[in-house]
Amino acid sequence: MVRHYSISVGPFPRGFHIITKLITDTVATWPDSGMLHAFIRHTSAGLCINENADSSVLDDFKLFFEKLAPENLPGITHDMEGPDDMPAHIKSTLTGTTVSIPIVNQKLGLGTWQGIYLCEFRTGGRKREIIISIVD
Amino acid sequence: MVRHYSISVGPFPRGFHIITKLITDTVATWPDSGMLHAFIRHTSAGLCINENADSSVLDDFKLFFEKLAPENLPGITHDMEGPDDMPAHIKSTLTGTTVSIPIVNQKLGLGTWQGIYLCEFRTGGRKREIIISIVD
Amino acid sequence: MVRHYSISVGPFPRGFHIITKLITDTVATWPDSGMLHAFIRHTSAGLCINENADSSVLDDFKLFFEKLAPENLPGITHDMEGPDDMPAHIKSTLTGTTVSIPIVNQKLGLGTWQGIYLCEFRTGGRKREIIISIVD
Repeated sequence: MVRHYSISVGPFPRGFHIITKLITDTVATWPDSGMLHAFIRHTSAGLCINENADSSVLDDFKLFFEKLAPENLPGITHDMEGPDDMPAHIKSTLTGTTVSIPIVNQKLGLGTWQGIYLCEFRTGGRKREIIISIVD
Repeated sequence: MVRHYSISVGPFPRGFHIITKLITDTVATWPDSGMLHAFIRHTSAGLCINENADSSVLDDFKLFFEKLAPENLPGITHDMEGPDDMPAHIKSTLTGTTVSIPIVNQKLGLGTWQGIYLCEFRTGGRKREIIISIVD
Repeated sequence: MVRHYSISVGPFPRGFHIITKLITDTVATWPDSGMLHAFIRHTSAGLCINENADSSVLDDFKLFFEKLAPENLPGITHDMEGPDDMPAHIKSTLTGTTVSIPIVNQKLGLGTWQGIYLCEFRTGGRKREIIISIVD
């Protein structure tokens, strides 16, 4: 069986944000054993899993991705929505739009240092919709 | 329950291609609630989710990935199949080989602007096999 | 139904390693039809799917990722655990932490040339925990 929960989160400033608790608080009923999939319904934001303890990691992620896919990259033509739009699409494909995590004993099977990141790649906040799916 | 559908698509020219309809047309029966996983059975092509409206996005993706993992990268040794082979492997890991999308009310829960991309990273087309799995 | 298997693998040297057999040998019972998800419980190692035949591909992957996210990147501040730590976090998000593969006729539906990679991004080995989930 698959149950879904839809949430609308943010707006978040451009950068990486830990949303593990936003996700887990949304799930009303946890199966003993299952899978959680979280899917972001956008093309200029992403979801991924990384370090949950030190906020400098979030800053460094932002720095790295800004350098990897900078604004005004030579040759880029899709700029109708501004110079941060196409880099945002690129970054969202690099981080991904879904995270899939086992549910073990009614809890997420994340490692000690793992958290779920929402990666906001646009400047100028909007709310972001996430569908959380519980498979059991 | 998990049902699979196998499809063979393409060949596609090197670049990014929207295949949402190829995927959805293949699924004979949609559950009210479930998950769709699409898995590409290749190591020089990928699947990801991104913008479905403006073809310039597809061109910009191609441009970005060609620059990120160019042919004839210094130090690369795996070139038996030509200079586009190892960059294709790298790109397929960066985009991913699986997309996982919730099924809500018998339809994919994609956002308004989201489509499924097949990313063809080789020059010289071949057909590509995709397994579509419906979990309900 | 979802069944999980937990395994502890390695330590592996920094680089890319094929662990398909480690994964498949762990699964005691294969459903006729299902999904396998493998999830690594760490933030400085990753899982992905790529070429299983030529070890030069593994070396080239290592080379590419070292160049893409080198140590001592200007501006990086998270270096408490050494210069290889933050690049390891970045690389693990680029490769991903979960692989999702269809199970068809009691076997993984991998293509002929596909294998599961464990990507070890730290210098100095530790064991790595993976949760394998079988959905049927």
